Amino acid sequence: MENRRLILVTNDDGYASKGMAAAIEVARGFGRVVVVAPETTQSGMSQAITMYNPLYLRRIRQEEELEVYAFSGTPVDCVKMAFDYLLREERVDLVISGINHGSNSAVNVLYSGTMGAAIEGSFYGCPAIGLSLDDHAADADFEASVLYGRRIVGDVLAGGVPLPLCLNVNVPVGKPDELRGIRLCRQNRGFWREEFYRHEDPRGREYFWLTGEFVNMEPEATDTDEWALAHGYVSVVPVQTDMTDYARLRELRGVFGVGPAEKPAKS
Amino acid sequence: MENRRLILVTNDDGYASKGMAAAIEVARGFGRVVVVAPETTQSGMSQAITMYNPLYLRRIRQEEELEVYAFSGTPVDCVKMAFDYLLREERVDLVISGINHGSNSAVNVLYSGTMGAAIEGSFYGCPAIGLSLDDHAADADFEASVLYGRRIVGDVLAGGVPLPLCLNVNVPVGKPDELRGIRLCRQNRGFWREEFYRHEDPRGREYFWLTGEFVNMEPEATDTDEWALAHGYVSVVPVQTDMTDYARLRELRGVFGVGPAEKPAKS
Repeated sequence: MENRRLILVTNDDGYASKGMAAAIEVARGFGRVVVVAPETTQSGMSQAITMYNPLYLRRIRQEEELEVYAFSGTPVDCVKMAFDYLLREERVDLVISGINHGSNSAVNVLYSGTMGAAIEGSFYGCPAIGLSLDDHAADADFEASVLYGRRIVGDVLAGGVPLPLCLNVNVPVGKPDELRGIRLCRQNRGFWREEFYRHEDPRGREYFWLTGEFVNMEPEATDTDEWALAHGYVSVVPVQTDMTDYARLRELRGVFGVGPAEKPAKS
Repeated sequence: MENRRLILVTNDDGYASKGMAAAIEVARGFGRVVVVAPETTQSGMSQAITMYNPLYLRRIRQEEELEVYAFSGTPVDCVKMAFDYLLREERVDLVISGINHGSNSAVNVLYSGTMGAAIEGSFYGCPAIGLSLDDHAADADFEASVLYGRRIVGDVLAGGVPLPLCLNVNVPVGKPDELRGIRLCRQNRGFWREEFYRHEDPRGREYFWLTGEFVNMEPEATDTDEWALAHGYVSVVPVQTDMTDYARLRELRGVFGVGPAEKPAKS
């Protein structure tokens, strides 16, 4: 048992969500599972960290092969709490974040708390997989997600995958035999345009709800995660975190009238 | 006056911060300024959006050339409120986010609310500039930041810069004549390792504060934002939002045993 793998599971829908139960189902076959997940829903929390509030940790469940903790912070806080406190003395073999209620394809990778946590996990030197199901319903059917999640986790843990590794996996709605398999993709370009619903609260104060629509900038492309999902495939996008725009870096050399260094060093 | 430029200013330290006053100083010389900024501090909020709470908007100030609104959401919510509601009928020429109290170099671009808002601004088709000063103090001296901010904004608005454009600008501590100029850089690789301060609240409940240290993975590199800041330069990193890891995309083709499509289409 000494060599049992250790899998950290987190999400952004909260430790008690249906998708968390599905993620635990994915992870359990591969080793000991420790869950550190938000107390409440943290959807749309991106890579946010809690800087100005104290955070509370609650142990929900403790069995030999499954421990569950609820943490009062963001998904990224949960990952940090796991690696830098709870599991500090242990070697974590894999991070699973999800299974999210709702897809995180295209630009949603930037807003997603699920993917924020997966990215953070990959910073700790083990593979990290964000799993999302393209269904926001509380009673969503996770059968196909669990099946494909297990298969992808199995392939990653079988080795041969270089690190760092962070995968953004999205599963379309459907029974396993309705899905068409796994498709490696790139992130679809696009953005959200919002509409604000305007209302008045009981005290006569105006308030707004954010709501919006995804604008697909490349609806014709067939190598994107959006296309894969829309055509019944499980999309897998490897994610990296160097945001530098290298093309612009070259173009901008002229604009600011400077080379790499403008004035000679004083030191 | 019809052709006056319109500049949206936001930040993550809140509309009343000293850095916001400095950002307004930068923007005012270039046109009409509309500020939509968080009510309270939103540091570390990344690209987070508010999905499950109503949002309140307050007008703080209205002059011909300067309007200021406080919004109860995240920095990204503020940008969305500005473009998709308040300024819906107008053309925004530039977004300035900042001036942040604290640098957003290296991997901080992922956690930063300042940069979350700048990135969001760039999705609306105008240049967006995140400005940060490498000083967390409430009474930080923004003189050099304002001077360099004006210069960079001037260069960007002078044209010739292709869109989309998002710049992560960080200014070191020092008087203008102590700084060595602007340096175009790439994002330094690295990550944070945390320590959790553990305490007990007055009711005997254990709580944690997140605190940490940046681990620089390439301290020798001289073309990074970390190096530039440490050597007295204003660092300028152009930022893009395609997180796809294209190198891994190729390497992974073998791992999942699939090509672009695994099963023939049913449709």
